Amino acid sequence: MQAEIVSIGDELLIGQVINSNQAFIAEQLNGVGIDVARMTTIGDSEQAILSSFQQALDRSDIVLTTGGLGPTHDDITRAVVCKFFKTDLVLDTAALQNIKQLFGRRGLEVTKINEGQALVPRGCTVIQNAFGTAPGYFFNRKGKYFIVMPGVPSEMKGMMENFVVPYFTEHVHGLVIRHRTLKTTGIPESYLADKIGSVESLFPQNSKISLAYLPSFLGVRLRITVKETSIDRAEAAIREVERKIRANAEKYIYAAGEEELEHVVGKLLTERKLKIAVAESCTGGLIADRITDVPGSSSYFERGIVTYSNESKLAELSVPLSFIQQHGAVSREVAEAMALGVRTKSNVDIGISTTGIAGPTGGTPEKPVGLVWIGYSDRHETLALKFTFVNDRRRVKERTAQAALDLLRRKLLKISI
Amino acid sequence: MQAEIVSIGDELLIGQVINSNQAFIAEQLNGVGIDVARMTTIGDSEQAILSSFQQALDRSDIVLTTGGLGPTHDDITRAVVCKFFKTDLVLDTAALQNIKQLFGRRGLEVTKINEGQALVPRGCTVIQNAFGTAPGYFFNRKGKYFIVMPGVPSEMKGMMENFVVPYFTEHVHGLVIRHRTLKTTGIPESYLADKIGSVESLFPQNSKISLAYLPSFLGVRLRITVKETSIDRAEAAIREVERKIRANAEKYIYAAGEEELEHVVGKLLTERKLKIAVAESCTGGLIADRITDVPGSSSYFERGIVTYSNESKLAELSVPLSFIQQHGAVSREVAEAMALGVRTKSNVDIGISTTGIAGPTGGTPEKPVGLVWIGYSDRHETLALKFTFVNDRRRVKERTAQAALDLLRRKLLKISI
Repeated sequence: MQAEIVSIGDELLIGQVINSNQAFIAEQLNGVGIDVARMTTIGDSEQAILSSFQQALDRSDIVLTTGGLGPTHDDITRAVVCKFFKTDLVLDTAALQNIKQLFGRRGLEVTKINEGQALVPRGCTVIQNAFGTAPGYFFNRKGKYFIVMPGVPSEMKGMMENFVVPYFTEHVHGLVIRHRTLKTTGIPESYLADKIGSVESLFPQNSKISLAYLPSFLGVRLRITVKETSIDRAEAAIREVERKIRANAEKYIYAAGEEELEHVVGKLLTERKLKIAVAESCTGGLIADRITDVPGSSSYFERGIVTYSNESKLAELSVPLSFIQQHGAVSREVAEAMALGVRTKSNVDIGISTTGIAGPTGGTPEKPVGLVWIGYSDRHETLALKFTFVNDRRRVKERTAQAALDLLRRKLLKISI
Repeated sequence: MQAEIVSIGDELLIGQVINSNQAFIAEQLNGVGIDVARMTTIGDSEQAILSSFQQALDRSDIVLTTGGLGPTHDDITRAVVCKFFKTDLVLDTAALQNIKQLFGRRGLEVTKINEGQALVPRGCTVIQNAFGTAPGYFFNRKGKYFIVMPGVPSEMKGMMENFVVPYFTEHVHGLVIRHRTLKTTGIPESYLADKIGSVESLFPQNSKISLAYLPSFLGVRLRITVKETSIDRAEAAIREVERKIRANAEKYIYAAGEEELEHVVGKLLTERKLKIAVAESCTGGLIADRITDVPGSSSYFERGIVTYSNESKLAELSVPLSFIQQHGAVSREVAEAMALGVRTKSNVDIGISTTGIAGPTGGTPEKPVGLVWIGYSDRHETLALKFTFVNDRRRVKERTAQAALDLLRRKLLKISI
């Protein structure tokens, strides 16, 4: 079975909204063995919507659309769906009840404009919206499936998880597809390719296996894909490829799957019953923010101090004034003193620190924008590593936070830094 | 002139990467008066690439592609471009020099695999890559334009800004399109629509003007679009619509354009020569992270304290233990004490605080997940506001940070909270 996704919305065509819906839908469909062959984005125009509906339905077995179901005048998808399927609108009492409940929970009065969203195309199966007012529509026509969902990501996600994925899990059977992703950081794509070796050496003459390099500025993801006749065969093949990759690049791999570094270090800290505190200058709170994105992080994250001024480095972290005067705030000495200072004052096992020049100004020939020191302190040692990151202010912050969390990971696993 | 964007990459079709390139390219093209009619995403398959190239070129004047130019085996776009334009590869010495310089700046040795990226399709204009090793290609054939760029966002952006946008600014003349976006927060979409009134009342019988509501969980953006015969006429129309919208919804509008709240409050703090410090519990550093995303924020952001444990609230912010015992850590009293505490200890003008239950666990019937108190303290007053946010942990953090920055904005502007 092959699917296409049609995203509808002028806001997408003029680039004011980044389309994250297509990726989510594709991932969910993949999980139940449905390939996505094409994703199309068009505007809120009747002609564009009708023609893309027809083309997608001609080419593919399943068409999923998002967008244009909101309560305001620029949302025309519902009317165009009626035209496409030559039907009219009918009140769905369950949808109306859902709208009333949703407003009630938020302590708000239902507006007329929202009540009107309970009118749905006659003849469709209504997909109730757990997170918003616009219901979705499901059509099964001549063996093909047509699914209409809102463009608000949380509402679409709820419908995918509660309706679409369960439906196709039950109704579709085909070749088993299995993916596995290994996430690396701290090594450029071409170096990683050199280390892992050629694709052919990993799986000679096996066209059922593919390996993709997916670089981003926080690291390279390796995606192994296998299509096989059984789950067992697929999983065995993936295990074999993963084993060969790990043999050459273990140190750089911090996760299998989509786990982020903050989850990985969170588990390691929990297992080891260790507590941590962070002292941030150039990352400005980003490391603490990432660590506290993990549910339950309060059991190992004690506190964070964002020391943006020199005074706060002295007062909060007991960094000696002489270090700043002699070496500057961006230096090995200050990074080490910050990590040691936050660990000691918080009475925890590990302290992490960052100090650097995030830019765009503040750089000098000796200390250019992007120069960063990351400090680490535990009961046995205190040290700092130097990095030079290119790119803009936000990127420098993000790469620094990633490198700091990876330093923590390697220290917790006792692997070389 | 009408453009289409073709994104190439299996990683997009399986949903492992969110495509932010299409939005960026569309926004840039809009700025020079080029409409994007369609965005298509296909996989790394020769057949899919060739057919979508042909379809897009048949329909539109300009085709822009991204992806598949990397140095590894799964990148096939260059070969397919050669096939499509019936040409072969030739060495581009400028591209080779760029690759060598790039590796040199990072202190790395050039690999053979990267050197090979300097081979480009014969007959194209090479678009040099300021941020990576893969050059882009520009073709002008029979009055149509075909542009091939890498999929790495920073590399594509550099090519758009340095080559594509300047080229079309010079070569294209058409109707003037002007957009203006007003960003609101703190009011749901349907309430905002009720306040602003109908589209017709804002601009009767004027088909050159459109107004779109773009909701997200951090607020609703209002986008005014005008197509006119002159810049003056377009800008006058936009001013008139904006004036009418502001008459009814001024309080909720925090920015015109794409500015974020941290930039808005940064300017206000700078103008008023005020300094700020933040004490965060449930937001875990996110407010400090957002504030320090602004270049120059070190002039008004003194420090941030992420007090995740109760001990740290006592030790860092002098929150009385009795407040926590009597009212709990998530309470008006603690929020106020945190804001006052961080302001006093940092010796700044304003203190902001957050304390809440980010979830997914930790909620009770009286204090459910999503309950948040936001504190504010200046030399004249200390107060806290209560919010209830639905959705997941990350969303609760983000909505809390947004509400805290908006509270700060309203206080700085002396408008009602």
